[in-house]
Amino acid sequence: MSSSYGENIRLTIFGQSHSPAIGMTLEGLPAGCEIDFDRLVRFMQRRAPGKNSYSTPRKEGDCPEFLCGVKGNISCGTPLTAIIRNTDTRSGDYSKLRVVPRPGHADYTAEVKYGGNQDYAGGGHFSGRLTAPLCIAGGIILQQLEKMGITVISRIASIGKIPDSGELLLSTADKDFPVVSDVQGEKMKELILKAKSNGDSVGGVVECKVTGLPAGIGDPMFGGMENRISSIVFGIPAVKGIEFGAGFGASELYGSENNDEFAVYGGKIVTMTNNCGGILGGITNGMPLSFRVGFKPTPSISKPQHSVNLETLTSEELIVTGRHDPCIVPRAVPCVEAAAAIAVYDAVLARKREL
Amino acid sequence: MSSSYGENIRLTIFGQSHSPAIGMTLEGLPAGCEIDFDRLVRFMQRRAPGKNSYSTPRKEGDCPEFLCGVKGNISCGTPLTAIIRNTDTRSGDYSKLRVVPRPGHADYTAEVKYGGNQDYAGGGHFSGRLTAPLCIAGGIILQQLEKMGITVISRIASIGKIPDSGELLLSTADKDFPVVSDVQGEKMKELILKAKSNGDSVGGVVECKVTGLPAGIGDPMFGGMENRISSIVFGIPAVKGIEFGAGFGASELYGSENNDEFAVYGGKIVTMTNNCGGILGGITNGMPLSFRVGFKPTPSISKPQHSVNLETLTSEELIVTGRHDPCIVPRAVPCVEAAAAIAVYDAVLARKREL
Amino acid sequence: MSSSYGENIRLTIFGQSHSPAIGMTLEGLPAGCEIDFDRLVRFMQRRAPGKNSYSTPRKEGDCPEFLCGVKGNISCGTPLTAIIRNTDTRSGDYSKLRVVPRPGHADYTAEVKYGGNQDYAGGGHFSGRLTAPLCIAGGIILQQLEKMGITVISRIASIGKIPDSGELLLSTADKDFPVVSDVQGEKMKELILKAKSNGDSVGGVVECKVTGLPAGIGDPMFGGMENRISSIVFGIPAVKGIEFGAGFGASELYGSENNDEFAVYGGKIVTMTNNCGGILGGITNGMPLSFRVGFKPTPSISKPQHSVNLETLTSEELIVTGRHDPCIVPRAVPCVEAAAAIAVYDAVLARKREL
Amino acid sequence: MSSSYGENIRLTIFGQSHSPAIGMTLEGLPAGCEIDFDRLVRFMQRRAPGKNSYSTPRKEGDCPEFLCGVKGNISCGTPLTAIIRNTDTRSGDYSKLRVVPRPGHADYTAEVKYGGNQDYAGGGHFSGRLTAPLCIAGGIILQQLEKMGITVISRIASIGKIPDSGELLLSTADKDFPVVSDVQGEKMKELILKAKSNGDSVGGVVECKVTGLPAGIGDPMFGGMENRISSIVFGIPAVKGIEFGAGFGASELYGSENNDEFAVYGGKIVTMTNNCGGILGGITNGMPLSFRVGFKPTPSISKPQHSVNLETLTSEELIVTGRHDPCIVPRAVPCVEAAAAIAVYDAVLARKREL
Repeated sequence: MSSSYGENIRLTIFGQSHSPAIGMTLEGLPAGCEIDFDRLVRFMQRRAPGKNSYSTPRKEGDCPEFLCGVKGNISCGTPLTAIIRNTDTRSGDYSKLRVVPRPGHADYTAEVKYGGNQDYAGGGHFSGRLTAPLCIAGGIILQQLEKMGITVISRIASIGKIPDSGELLLSTADKDFPVVSDVQGEKMKELILKAKSNGDSVGGVVECKVTGLPAGIGDPMFGGMENRISSIVFGIPAVKGIEFGAGFGASELYGSENNDEFAVYGGKIVTMTNNCGGILGGITNGMPLSFRVGFKPTPSISKPQHSVNLETLTSEELIVTGRHDPCIVPRAVPCVEAAAAIAVYDAVLARKREL
Repeated sequence: MSSSYGENIRLTIFGQSHSPAIGMTLEGLPAGCEIDFDRLVRFMQRRAPGKNSYSTPRKEGDCPEFLCGVKGNISCGTPLTAIIRNTDTRSGDYSKLRVVPRPGHADYTAEVKYGGNQDYAGGGHFSGRLTAPLCIAGGIILQQLEKMGITVISRIASIGKIPDSGELLLSTADKDFPVVSDVQGEKMKELILKAKSNGDSVGGVVECKVTGLPAGIGDPMFGGMENRISSIVFGIPAVKGIEFGAGFGASELYGSENNDEFAVYGGKIVTMTNNCGGILGGITNGMPLSFRVGFKPTPSISKPQHSVNLETLTSEELIVTGRHDPCIVPRAVPCVEAAAAIAVYDAVLARKREL
Repeated sequence: MSSSYGENIRLTIFGQSHSPAIGMTLEGLPAGCEIDFDRLVRFMQRRAPGKNSYSTPRKEGDCPEFLCGVKGNISCGTPLTAIIRNTDTRSGDYSKLRVVPRPGHADYTAEVKYGGNQDYAGGGHFSGRLTAPLCIAGGIILQQLEKMGITVISRIASIGKIPDSGELLLSTADKDFPVVSDVQGEKMKELILKAKSNGDSVGGVVECKVTGLPAGIGDPMFGGMENRISSIVFGIPAVKGIEFGAGFGASELYGSENNDEFAVYGGKIVTMTNNCGGILGGITNGMPLSFRVGFKPTPSISKPQHSVNLETLTSEELIVTGRHDPCIVPRAVPCVEAAAAIAVYDAVLARKREL
Repeated sequence: MSSSYGENIRLTIFGQSHSPAIGMTLEGLPAGCEIDFDRLVRFMQRRAPGKNSYSTPRKEGDCPEFLCGVKGNISCGTPLTAIIRNTDTRSGDYSKLRVVPRPGHADYTAEVKYGGNQDYAGGGHFSGRLTAPLCIAGGIILQQLEKMGITVISRIASIGKIPDSGELLLSTADKDFPVVSDVQGEKMKELILKAKSNGDSVGGVVECKVTGLPAGIGDPMFGGMENRISSIVFGIPAVKGIEFGAGFGASELYGSENNDEFAVYGGKIVTMTNNCGGILGGITNGMPLSFRVGFKPTPSISKPQHSVNLETLTSEELIVTGRHDPCIVPRAVPCVEAAAAIAVYDAVLARKREL
């Protein structure tokens, strides 16, 4: 089922951008997990729109209502469902898009797949808004991982061709613009605003690291950490690439350059480099698990574009109106953390069966 | 289950490099599928080792024995199992690797995960040899896709820093070295042989295209074509990155550059560019589905490397012996095709439920 | 995941008896399915409590609110979620049951499983109230099956030792007490009221038939119609047995008595008897699929019973208060229909992959 | 996938009665499980045919060959595959059955489902022979359960209308005819031989108990022990009913009769009766888990029966030849144990995620 993820914990995301509500159900969360709702809301606010000039002006309360699965702030072991009401919706903005699909969007493919029955308002189930329920689940799970000493951090690694500098060592969660180098961050913001002022958009890359993971998490073959993480991360809209450790860069290296040699450090086995991104044979080796995610530029731009009228099968010029992010990447950072957390937690639970 | 893939068709791969046999079971293959065994064997020979000087000298018959699921050469609708006997094994080569793990290999992570019970001979279940059963399944499915007009082609896009040139438009299956430009291919081979003569190895990139796919295949969220393909492709050993269409390159573009504008061509809706790799919102748009896969260099190199003796927790120098590919990429090309075929076929079957 | 069912359509049920809401998500419902909400509510009212003197006096509105997955009354192809708010809850009734568990209930096993974190109010996730979301899903699916000519009917086959008479040939949905013979129905009601007046409860059997199913639905081995149906039907609280066709009765017969001989009737292949309940080798044969479900008596009775104080580990006499059904069977009839419909529809969708 | 079972351990059964081999793959068996192959073979011999006059004269070696997943007699954590070659096959016996299907068999439904491509020889994938791989998996798992103090025992509870007497307290594994009362056993054997001499067959009931299970195993809703066990047990050919604890008998009782009152015994919480079969709310309560399985009489009888010629659509008299069991029940006893063991072990592994 395409809107569900996970074998040992299962997340199901439901809702459309303009339906009465969106939400998620989390099955398999063990009983007795404490949830800090305030922290959860703060986590979710990192992806909330309308904060500043480089995101969509759509305002969302984004405060989840928990329908079941908790007793007070403790999980009770049965499915946990939380919803967010959709309020600030303007469906009128979208009525034309069913007939003249936006380039780069799912409008056309949804029309083919659902035969005209899709809920196209606001992008329907394909909307970036559906990452809010992902962040509910991720935010809850991040808190549980933390109790195990596992931390997930991330940053914007680049916007367009402007890279961040420095290494990702600390959380950027408290920053308004999640980069290591604020100097580079300013350049990125400029680029986003420039794109915006041109009625255009721009893409970027998010880097994510999971630290504190013990060795031995993950499985061979199709259950590797790479498989598990990629199969959830591509569920975030606009993701078009993922690489682990040195990733595509490793393909340019000799084995003698790329191999991470082993050493003993503080009585523990470590590697002296981490080109493998903490994963060997799909299984964690105890080093930080690291990966990078490439986002395409937001397809909704206000520049005129060529499209096709699906009813008349003739070319038509399209100008997309509505409220859109000129760059989705800053808001995607917590989404990547959420996705990583869910994938890692699922693998951690799987490991418990073996021990 | 980590050694299984698929929802509508399910492939299970079993075996270790030096166990009595390796093999695969394919569940869900509809009754009545014709299998051309000769073509299947020819397909499998593209990944077989020992063909030439840039692959491992291990010789494998690699001829699958079908245990069930077919009547003559027609699938009978129930699980299809095929095995390959392991014959040319030299387990003595590997006895030391459990104690002193090879950098870049799963030796160490398997030791942690399985607590010493893993079958480490030849890399066990982590061996590249396990791509042979993947190719049995993929080879069968490629034949079924072809009957639907769906073709999977691929090539080596680069070895180390040497790129292929030209566009991937035709199958390279008949070539000894699967590139578009034989001139570039010669340079790649030189690089591989150079690495080999240095006791080293080198990585590379494989590009793959699926043509003839109708629009409407795949699902939103976690069931997108990107999710489906990446979660099987990372099951091929040494894969560290995947990108669809323009991939990471798209992250450097403006929306106005990256968006694929729609047009009408021959009465059909097409896009004028294909930066999205034929996938919008996880669903095919009718254009060729394209992706690139990054392979790290083979970790088994004969240069001395630092490792750790797991029993004494002291550093130890390791020289890997045994027979290994200086570059896995040429043999990985059909494996990527196989993986793509399985993922696509699973999605095509899923689509049948909706129609 | 224990609160989910189905491979080709997936139902997830969430909620506790006294949580803010209960509900369900249905994934995989094809786009374009029309839903008659009025009929759905009428279907759900068949299981609603508080209708008459032989069910619990708890009143429930039970009117589902649809959060997403529909556009008007047409399914849009993405997850469909509906919830029911819990309003008439009296959690005070249940506070003692965590310490002194009710015999025949899940109080004790939930305490062990969830370590005290379970939501015990009203039986939590184990409550019969959770059959309401089952009936939302079932009611929607029954409407879709009907469009395919597939009908699900059922009746009370017995209450205590009082059997219904006559054969189940027509729907009993319009009857206040769903039996074929109203004479027998009156005797059953008397027995229920007698049990009630004694502070006791009584069990019974529900018979269900699915007609209009084509031959060829279902799968061998673990995907048989018996496996599929039983694995959902035992999700209805209080079910302790299921049998298909002649069921346990067949175990007393000779093969020559039990075998259903084939004949040609109206150009179609039929069987002259239906001891197999329309299923051979797990697959439908085109005859009515029939099964019977045994329900234990409601465990909540007001007679004094022996229990144990889990804190002091001493015996304690328990008198269960609260509002309970003296016999769950009449309200279970639509639940069995719902469960059968979901199982059958899942198998029908599976079949589409093969054709 | 219909030939697979389990979420935390997964069994896949493959093969047809007359294909080169049958077998099974077990995924998820933790590394380090010791397997006593001699005991396994002894377990499998309990279901082997040809032992005596009341089973089919087909002789099978039934000695599994392990292809992978073990190192010596220790599981290595990756998929374990074992096969059994089919040798004593006489396909000629079956050639007519595709056109004139046997009453009570899957011949007709397989023809419809697979459109003539099914392997009908020997019943194909529907053959009782496929319970041999079930017993490989079950036999391995029974040994692992035993190390946890969990034991599975069973007996023939009745053949035709002849019941066993006494209670099932000890294993009947060492008996040639697995009943508690040998006196009743003799009567059962007489009945089987009488049926055989008439060219007929007879059904029966198997009772099974799992002792030593801790409380807290299993899940609510669709993950209950009843759901889990029934969904595998119906995979054994000829099973038409299952009931837990008092089962259908409970439907005739008052709540005050059926409820199992709690008591403290030896410092542990027990129930004074066990009408619930050790399961409350789908979860074990620490009492023996008990259930009964109803088998229909073997459909293959040599008495003349009415069937239909599928090519001409005319009635035809059929006399089934070939080698068949006049009663499958004695050989089904270890199959029920195997199925129960697999279901229980899967639930035990699931429980480990929570602790």
